[in-house]
Amino acid sequence: MPIPEPSPSRPTLTVQVMDAVRGRIAGRMLAPGARVPSIRAFAREQGVSASTVVEAYERLVAEGVIAPRPGSGFYVAGRPQPLLLRPGAPVAERDIDPLWVMRQALDGSEALKPGCGWLPQAWMPAEAIRRALRAAARSPDIALVDYATPLGFPPLRAQLSRRLAERGVEASPEQILLTDSGTGALDLVCRLLLQPGDTVVVDDPCYFNFLGLARAHRARVVGVPMTPSGPDLDAFERVAAEHRPRLYLTTAALHNPTGVSYGPAVAHRLLTHCAAHDVTVIEDDIFGDLEPEAAAPRLAALDGLARVVQVGSFSKTLSAAIRCGYVAARPDIVGSLADIKLATAFGSNDLSARLVHSLLTDGSYRRHVEGLRAKLARAMGETARHLAEAGLRPWILPKGGLFLWAVLPEGADATAVARRAMGQGVVLAPGNVFSVSRTADRYMRFNVAQCGSPRVFEVLREALAG
Amino acid sequence: MPIPEPSPSRPTLTVQVMDAVRGRIAGRMLAPGARVPSIRAFAREQGVSASTVVEAYERLVAEGVIAPRPGSGFYVAGRPQPLLLRPGAPVAERDIDPLWVMRQALDGSEALKPGCGWLPQAWMPAEAIRRALRAAARSPDIALVDYATPLGFPPLRAQLSRRLAERGVEASPEQILLTDSGTGALDLVCRLLLQPGDTVVVDDPCYFNFLGLARAHRARVVGVPMTPSGPDLDAFERVAAEHRPRLYLTTAALHNPTGVSYGPAVAHRLLTHCAAHDVTVIEDDIFGDLEPEAAAPRLAALDGLARVVQVGSFSKTLSAAIRCGYVAARPDIVGSLADIKLATAFGSNDLSARLVHSLLTDGSYRRHVEGLRAKLARAMGETARHLAEAGLRPWILPKGGLFLWAVLPEGADATAVARRAMGQGVVLAPGNVFSVSRTADRYMRFNVAQCGSPRVFEVLREALAG
Repeated sequence: MPIPEPSPSRPTLTVQVMDAVRGRIAGRMLAPGARVPSIRAFAREQGVSASTVVEAYERLVAEGVIAPRPGSGFYVAGRPQPLLLRPGAPVAERDIDPLWVMRQALDGSEALKPGCGWLPQAWMPAEAIRRALRAAARSPDIALVDYATPLGFPPLRAQLSRRLAERGVEASPEQILLTDSGTGALDLVCRLLLQPGDTVVVDDPCYFNFLGLARAHRARVVGVPMTPSGPDLDAFERVAAEHRPRLYLTTAALHNPTGVSYGPAVAHRLLTHCAAHDVTVIEDDIFGDLEPEAAAPRLAALDGLARVVQVGSFSKTLSAAIRCGYVAARPDIVGSLADIKLATAFGSNDLSARLVHSLLTDGSYRRHVEGLRAKLARAMGETARHLAEAGLRPWILPKGGLFLWAVLPEGADATAVARRAMGQGVVLAPGNVFSVSRTADRYMRFNVAQCGSPRVFEVLREALAG
Repeated sequence: MPIPEPSPSRPTLTVQVMDAVRGRIAGRMLAPGARVPSIRAFAREQGVSASTVVEAYERLVAEGVIAPRPGSGFYVAGRPQPLLLRPGAPVAERDIDPLWVMRQALDGSEALKPGCGWLPQAWMPAEAIRRALRAAARSPDIALVDYATPLGFPPLRAQLSRRLAERGVEASPEQILLTDSGTGALDLVCRLLLQPGDTVVVDDPCYFNFLGLARAHRARVVGVPMTPSGPDLDAFERVAAEHRPRLYLTTAALHNPTGVSYGPAVAHRLLTHCAAHDVTVIEDDIFGDLEPEAAAPRLAALDGLARVVQVGSFSKTLSAAIRCGYVAARPDIVGSLADIKLATAFGSNDLSARLVHSLLTDGSYRRHVEGLRAKLARAMGETARHLAEAGLRPWILPKGGLFLWAVLPEGADATAVARRAMGQGVVLAPGNVFSVSRTADRYMRFNVAQCGSPRVFEVLREALAG
């Protein structure tokens, strides 16, 4: 397919009209609850066609900025609606609400959870963590009671710097900032780099919490379709030209939910496009340690942390109870992030950092992760086989990690299937939860480590049968 | 003094002009770096006087929204300036930069730190924490590896609910949400309730990080003078009428930096004003446990958590390394906060919550806090005496807690004194760090627990002498 001519880097008329409405709201010229100008009046005022205004208003409605009242026009959504992450969604839509899946998965019930995003408890290194806790109990007093330094526990930052170097990412310990989670690391970077109304590019499909995160920052989200070797670069180019995004939020190794690891050519071309359009990349490397061989080039390595910011954590591989994430970035970015971290969290959890450090340095982590890779590889094969028996087809066979992105049989509706399975005590993750365009309703994400029970597939078959 | 007639609840012309400029920036009609209309042109366009536009532009400059270029007018500040919390402040201003004090105090050096906001290491219950860590090492596997439930560790929430009830705050465990710090709790509430450009009222002086926090939320800050029995209510009323604030951020018990505990009549009238002007109150109760008797009514208790949200943590009384804060609020607010917490942090640190819970329930915390109160009372007396000898006068004698807000001798400049003391290895906290109006340059905050060394007062005398 030929690469289309790049469109000029100007917003479309629709986007301009949307901006004008947003501006009036931000500037209090339109208060919450106020009536937005009529389509005809606003078209005249802005010198555009009525259909442009119709489209702009429809997109603002979809974003929850304005709301229609039948027979009476459009009104500015009431406050504090922009940050109610589920602004009055009707019950019927809750099935494709990402928070629904998270809450179901997190609620601590006894349900089987092939739709969740973490490893089973039995796969995690509880004994090593007990050892680390006992070692922490022998720490000097200061470690037990004092605030962390602004960037966080120096020995862990030094250790992370060495680990990143092994993957070709050059980041000195002063370029690494610790946070209380990987999500917290993403959030902190968004706080620095995003302003309300900015556009963020995500993969379609992507980790569902990216959508919640963007919403929490009042950012607009635009999706780029995922291909088996990375994002669709032609689509990326078009989106970059039309929407002037500020950030691209992605995972280059063992992408969630698809399991894709970027090919080298895709990674290189992507960075070229980002440079051309001045897009900063946040690379969430949370699954990187689960890659069997370090084949996929990290964007942060190719780019030398110039316009890539890498974040990661140990929640998936070590413990979700020991919360510790990191950001690796340019020194100027790290300095600004440290200020925001002070203002909004005062510091990070040094005790968690100490525990992670002790597990990284005593060899437990490396042994544990090697064991995980082997178990995940087996589970991947078995899950793919069981899914095939149930009539599902893996979209690709990932090189490793937790996730299989599976295509349902013709005619099946993932949301309906998930709803039925939920009734049988099985939490599934329907595709549209991950899709900003909501075009993944024949897909489901399976966590192969959570598919050990035959009941998962029994319930899945029943749910597919309706 | 008679209560002034309430002014009509409309923004002033200056605020309207400010809003108009903000709106254009938010709506991209004015891009970062673009020239703002000239004063004359904008005055004509908005139908206001040139002096109104001058005042509006000056206030926008003070907020970092626009910047003057000598001889060439005003320009929209470049991005991402709004969240660079220290946007290119000249070196000479760093002395009154709150982050400067925080960083100096946190940098782990051997300096004496009467200006810092926490207790000395030796005052903290390290042995009890060691015991709690060993107990945590015996937890079930799930506690060591799994994600927290959305609101956080249920037994700690139940315990906090009982503790709040002892102070007259009725909050069920479902009305309590755990966070990774008290600052994180404040931040989360701000995320829900604030929109960029909203106004937040703070006390003048107030905890300096409130100013950083407001800035991180792109909020405007307006100060209300503190009196020895609470905020100046006439000033509060005027500010509420003129600025239509969304939030009031305060500490009713052992206020930082003044040590004030609100009188009951002030608390009641304040809540009446807040109801009249639809202002939500965030009550930061971080020092509450250090009050000798529970004399000061908590705002949350008077109000029944209707328009008050209370936050707290154990960083000051237990450990700053075990990070655990909480929010107590209306159920609808807690539900929305839980969604934002999922999107921006995924969960809170359950291990920290478990440690705090074990210290709260085994009696260590109660004994420790009783001991602290006695030591603090002694230190308060001694510090007041030493300060008096050095020519400083306590503004009030607080009922307890860490802080003495002291008035310097006539003619002394707190910032200059702090700068000189820093050169001698003593970190002091000059008053203007806490003052949004920067009118506290004859004040300093002393942490009485950090004033045990005679060298503090030696250096202070020398620094005062110039």
